[in-house]
Amino acid sequence: MKINGQVQKILSHYESDNPGTKANLARILMQGKLAGTGKVVILPVDQGFEHGPARSFALNPPAYDPHYHFQLAIDAGLSAYAAPLGPIEAGAGTFAGQIPLILKVNSANSLSTNKDQAVTGSVKDALRLGCSAIGFTIYPGSEDQYAMFEEIRALGEEAKANGLAVVIWSYPRGGKLSKDGETAIDVTAYAAHMATMLGAHIIKVKPPTAFIEQAEAKAVYEKQKIDVSTLAARIAHVVQSCFDGRRIVVFSGGAAKGETEILDEVRELYKGGATGSIMGRNAFQRPREDALKLLDAIIKIYKGQE
Amino acid sequence: MKINGQVQKILSHYESDNPGTKANLARILMQGKLAGTGKVVILPVDQGFEHGPARSFALNPPAYDPHYHFQLAIDAGLSAYAAPLGPIEAGAGTFAGQIPLILKVNSANSLSTNKDQAVTGSVKDALRLGCSAIGFTIYPGSEDQYAMFEEIRALGEEAKANGLAVVIWSYPRGGKLSKDGETAIDVTAYAAHMATMLGAHIIKVKPPTAFIEQAEAKAVYEKQKIDVSTLAARIAHVVQSCFDGRRIVVFSGGAAKGETEILDEVRELYKGGATGSIMGRNAFQRPREDALKLLDAIIKIYKGQE
Amino acid sequence: MKINGQVQKILSHYESDNPGTKANLARILMQGKLAGTGKVVILPVDQGFEHGPARSFALNPPAYDPHYHFQLAIDAGLSAYAAPLGPIEAGAGTFAGQIPLILKVNSANSLSTNKDQAVTGSVKDALRLGCSAIGFTIYPGSEDQYAMFEEIRALGEEAKANGLAVVIWSYPRGGKLSKDGETAIDVTAYAAHMATMLGAHIIKVKPPTAFIEQAEAKAVYEKQKIDVSTLAARIAHVVQSCFDGRRIVVFSGGAAKGETEILDEVRELYKGGATGSIMGRNAFQRPREDALKLLDAIIKIYKGQE
Amino acid sequence: MKINGQVQKILSHYESDNPGTKANLARILMQGKLAGTGKVVILPVDQGFEHGPARSFALNPPAYDPHYHFQLAIDAGLSAYAAPLGPIEAGAGTFAGQIPLILKVNSANSLSTNKDQAVTGSVKDALRLGCSAIGFTIYPGSEDQYAMFEEIRALGEEAKANGLAVVIWSYPRGGKLSKDGETAIDVTAYAAHMATMLGAHIIKVKPPTAFIEQAEAKAVYEKQKIDVSTLAARIAHVVQSCFDGRRIVVFSGGAAKGETEILDEVRELYKGGATGSIMGRNAFQRPREDALKLLDAIIKIYKGQE
Amino acid sequence: MKINGQVQKILSHYESDNPGTKANLARILMQGKLAGTGKVVILPVDQGFEHGPARSFALNPPAYDPHYHFQLAIDAGLSAYAAPLGPIEAGAGTFAGQIPLILKVNSANSLSTNKDQAVTGSVKDALRLGCSAIGFTIYPGSEDQYAMFEEIRALGEEAKANGLAVVIWSYPRGGKLSKDGETAIDVTAYAAHMATMLGAHIIKVKPPTAFIEQAEAKAVYEKQKIDVSTLAARIAHVVQSCFDGRRIVVFSGGAAKGETEILDEVRELYKGGATGSIMGRNAFQRPREDALKLLDAIIKIYKGQE
Repeated sequence: MKINGQVQKILSHYESDNPGTKANLARILMQGKLAGTGKVVILPVDQGFEHGPARSFALNPPAYDPHYHFQLAIDAGLSAYAAPLGPIEAGAGTFAGQIPLILKVNSANSLSTNKDQAVTGSVKDALRLGCSAIGFTIYPGSEDQYAMFEEIRALGEEAKANGLAVVIWSYPRGGKLSKDGETAIDVTAYAAHMATMLGAHIIKVKPPTAFIEQAEAKAVYEKQKIDVSTLAARIAHVVQSCFDGRRIVVFSGGAAKGETEILDEVRELYKGGATGSIMGRNAFQRPREDALKLLDAIIKIYKGQE
Repeated sequence: MKINGQVQKILSHYESDNPGTKANLARILMQGKLAGTGKVVILPVDQGFEHGPARSFALNPPAYDPHYHFQLAIDAGLSAYAAPLGPIEAGAGTFAGQIPLILKVNSANSLSTNKDQAVTGSVKDALRLGCSAIGFTIYPGSEDQYAMFEEIRALGEEAKANGLAVVIWSYPRGGKLSKDGETAIDVTAYAAHMATMLGAHIIKVKPPTAFIEQAEAKAVYEKQKIDVSTLAARIAHVVQSCFDGRRIVVFSGGAAKGETEILDEVRELYKGGATGSIMGRNAFQRPREDALKLLDAIIKIYKGQE
Repeated sequence: MKINGQVQKILSHYESDNPGTKANLARILMQGKLAGTGKVVILPVDQGFEHGPARSFALNPPAYDPHYHFQLAIDAGLSAYAAPLGPIEAGAGTFAGQIPLILKVNSANSLSTNKDQAVTGSVKDALRLGCSAIGFTIYPGSEDQYAMFEEIRALGEEAKANGLAVVIWSYPRGGKLSKDGETAIDVTAYAAHMATMLGAHIIKVKPPTAFIEQAEAKAVYEKQKIDVSTLAARIAHVVQSCFDGRRIVVFSGGAAKGETEILDEVRELYKGGATGSIMGRNAFQRPREDALKLLDAIIKIYKGQE
Repeated sequence: MKINGQVQKILSHYESDNPGTKANLARILMQGKLAGTGKVVILPVDQGFEHGPARSFALNPPAYDPHYHFQLAIDAGLSAYAAPLGPIEAGAGTFAGQIPLILKVNSANSLSTNKDQAVTGSVKDALRLGCSAIGFTIYPGSEDQYAMFEEIRALGEEAKANGLAVVIWSYPRGGKLSKDGETAIDVTAYAAHMATMLGAHIIKVKPPTAFIEQAEAKAVYEKQKIDVSTLAARIAHVVQSCFDGRRIVVFSGGAAKGETEILDEVRELYKGGATGSIMGRNAFQRPREDALKLLDAIIKIYKGQE
Repeated sequence: MKINGQVQKILSHYESDNPGTKANLARILMQGKLAGTGKVVILPVDQGFEHGPARSFALNPPAYDPHYHFQLAIDAGLSAYAAPLGPIEAGAGTFAGQIPLILKVNSANSLSTNKDQAVTGSVKDALRLGCSAIGFTIYPGSEDQYAMFEEIRALGEEAKANGLAVVIWSYPRGGKLSKDGETAIDVTAYAAHMATMLGAHIIKVKPPTAFIEQAEAKAVYEKQKIDVSTLAARIAHVVQSCFDGRRIVVFSGGAAKGETEILDEVRELYKGGATGSIMGRNAFQRPREDALKLLDAIIKIYKGQE
């Protein structure tokens, strides 16, 4: 695997990481159809844990089988596949070495009454299963946010010491945040920034709206005339908030929606300088052929071919 | 012990486990009258802890003696015997090597005022007592569910590293769940799915009713026309929710009831593709000869002989 | 020390324990006037911690000195002496090898506002002080019961691995239990059973009353016609609830009372099959000569000589 | 250093301790003007932490310098100097070997809203700084008392294993205790007794009043005619409550007061059999010469010379 | 690097520290334009974590890039640069050996609803990143203050054992403190004193006002005529409260303000005997040339050249 200049530059931003971690980041950046472009598209499948199996897979029943997702990610030429312990265990042997894996090490479910997640995997699990990274969700703003920060601090330190990369899903919620505030541009940029402060190699946030939640932030956005009028402008602001582009930042797709809507959104992400997309329900809740077609169209956008 | 193709196929689904764990799963699958069929019937005895000794054993006083249960499981040709620390310690020497043991490592009691269990056994205990697996109960939906998930995460990791199998009893309760919701088909399938996500090798749930608890789930069940009209159909849905059949799923029998009722239920379990039954009170609260007769009838169903 | 058949049989019930633990159980069973009878009488002195020094010792001031209790237990020919860390440290050197010691590793005090105990000793303490066992109190039913269960789980595992025996004081209280329920026969049998489930070698409970606390239990006691009319019958039921007699079960004496009353109670305990008595205040709050006389009378009952 | 019979006898009471701990107790008992008398006077300086620097040191500004206290204790011929981590670190090198040090390993402050202390030092700190003992405060009766007991249990075990002595400050407060109850004779004797139960080598309590807090205790004090009419009688009762004199018991001086008042109190302590005094504010809040004079007078009392 | 007498004297105050820690303190004291003067100016950048990226960096967009701050601190001739994990990781390789680094190991954010911080870095992180010290914030007075004290106790012990220095940010807030009380002279001196008690090598507090919060303190300030009328007098009182000048005490600059105002304040700090300033927003929220000019003026004051 010859690493080109584009990827070398990205790796150079992780200047404090050991060769093991750099190699795992390189594996993700050199995988699939986007290999060498500096862009990534990742398939995450933890919706069964979050929403239950029927709500996740009944629309496309082959997806009940964990092997389905490994194969989909491989065949679509994606950069990595992310899932909790059980599904990774169920396919890591069969697909060993075919696609970088991200072990999601904490998980929530829709029966829960509080804004937290349970730690459900470990760095040792990630290592024995051949994963390239661990994934962890934080809920900035929630009552449990500091406990979550302390969990990822410990897990992140252990992951880095063992040559793994660290992916943080940063989803603001709870506490004094309004519902609109959860996807507000100021809060999203802040959430992404916090993930970088916590030492994430890859940051995942939701595409932000133009809403501004915090009064003190609003004053600054207005005074400094920060452009939040288009999604592309907001993405650029989030990327800037992640060490001015020194970190890989990917955006989630959210609930299943139409192909046109998705591609329009991805074009804005690309324009704003996003490193890529992380797309779950919009991939595996479609019939396999439709999903492959859609993912290919997304990849073409990130390749600048469309 | 020659392992046949049926069992080999089941073992192949546990593709990330070490030979120690696979050997212990094989011991359970190759034990007793169901050896080699890919089906299992397990005797669990923790009701003394959960409901007290008189409510558990006064109906059949020889059952006060822990040796009684080891002998019953062996003589009935069952696949494994599961119990908490004390009773396993009381018989593991006498019956060493005669039947696979599952050490139940957490326990609740009916004096408790919260929906949780205490961790009452360890992986080290399981190893020193010659057990094949640890058993752990989770209460999806309860206030303490995430703490329970984190306990089994740690215990499960340690068990797998030491070549043991992991059995999860998944009993939804507490939080925002209604009483009917505890055995609803959507919640049961979700609870079973969560156990697979947590890395269980064997999942135990209760036979679900046709009730659907969650509004978002109800919409999907109706739109996707998921058949929940018969117990067999519901069982098939639960099995599908456990990695599309890649995991061993067993169903409990519940409170003591009539023989006909039990056998009718087991026939539905078998028809729905359940791996087997885990039957406590319906076994040890009957006179020994009646219990042996009943268990033999159940085994015949799982052998497809009836 | 030649171990006779009676004691050999008791030791054989502890079939999962290592020779170290068996040797320590044997030390207790082969100590003092009851050596070889399979019966035990134990002196526990933690009342100073529980009620304060004056309430415990002012009645018999020599008892302020920890050496007093070691000497009393030795001179009375008792089976073991149990106390918290401080008093054991204060005499373990002087009396080394003269009587088996039980280090009480958790303690409560009457200033407390919650139903819990503090862990105040360790297995390492027990080992360095030459103890044969650790003692631990659980409060089944209390809000903190599961935390207590988890403490003794860990301490018990460590004790057994180091060749010590485990004694559990099981005192129901708190939560939804009524005051009468704390000594109800159903609750006492349940409490004793829980101690066996937790892996105790020796179980200590209070002599139960004929009251039945739990509605579900009451139905069973009545339907199965469990005899709870005499203390002896209730003791037999508790002993049966402890693995049908496979565990050592001792009963406490409670608050100081008259000699006749005590001996009458002990006769019932003996008749019911109790392994023995654990008697604190009724021993050390009497003048030494009276205490020696009373303890001798109790021992005679357990020897079947009266 | 030749140890005389008086000190040998005291050391013999610590019969379970290793030679390291005995040597450290001996260092304290053989230090300064009271060397060999079996009596001790200790300088504690943690008031800056408890009340703030100005309230502690403005009255005698040289006391802002941590070296001041080391020198004062040495020049006054005291037995030991006790302080938290920071001040010990600030002088332990300069004064190494000149006076035994007690590292206070937990601390409270007057900004706190709950009855607890923070652990602020460790056994490793005590060892690297050349200390002879660790000091720890418990608040018997407070909501947090059991957590504090568990902290000193662990720290005490580690200290003893490393040859250090353990000093417990036992200050009842919180929970159901009345303000008067905090220094009541029954509560003080109980608090001192608890410290001995927890394994303290040296117990520090406040001089008790004649008030009796607990109804059950009051009944015993009256029935047994325990003399609490004079301070000396109360001190004797506290000393008796500490293993009948087998433990070193020292009494604090409290808020700064007149010399006559202090010396009168110390005479009563001496008469009651106290091992000595631990005197902070009354020492360092006086001009150095006055403090030296006062401490010398106190020492003379403990030497029986006045 | 030849260490002069001024610095040697400061190092001598850290008499219990190992050569590793002393060397790291020396690195800070011998860095930049203030090398050898015994004074320090430190650049801290954790405002992105505390207030969000736009509020911190939009005023001077190059500051979004973590390299900007390393370079600013180096070019301004400052003594050290302090930041959380992420930004240190992002530049520690490029700027290795060019400026002493302080890894801020706990962090708060403005979305939080409680007065605490999350631990977000470790001593191992500090070591692998080549840092000279760890930094930790305590909130004296808050509900969580004791938990924070216990965190820094453990981290401080580990840091010192590994040859690092410990910097404590001591910011009173929460609990019974009034808003004015947070910067009151009595509370600030107390907060600084607590940091010294906890074993800090370098203490950081805010410049105090003349307000006195605590009634008991007020009585002493008035009776002892402690001068709090000028900022210089108050600074002198804080420095005295830190072991009478035996500890390095630095003062923060607070929100961005005018150059004149800043320099006036620094002159008072210098006059009061402060070791130096720690200046964040007033440095990096100005254009780089303005910041360099301002920092140079501040340094001149500390050199006594202005």
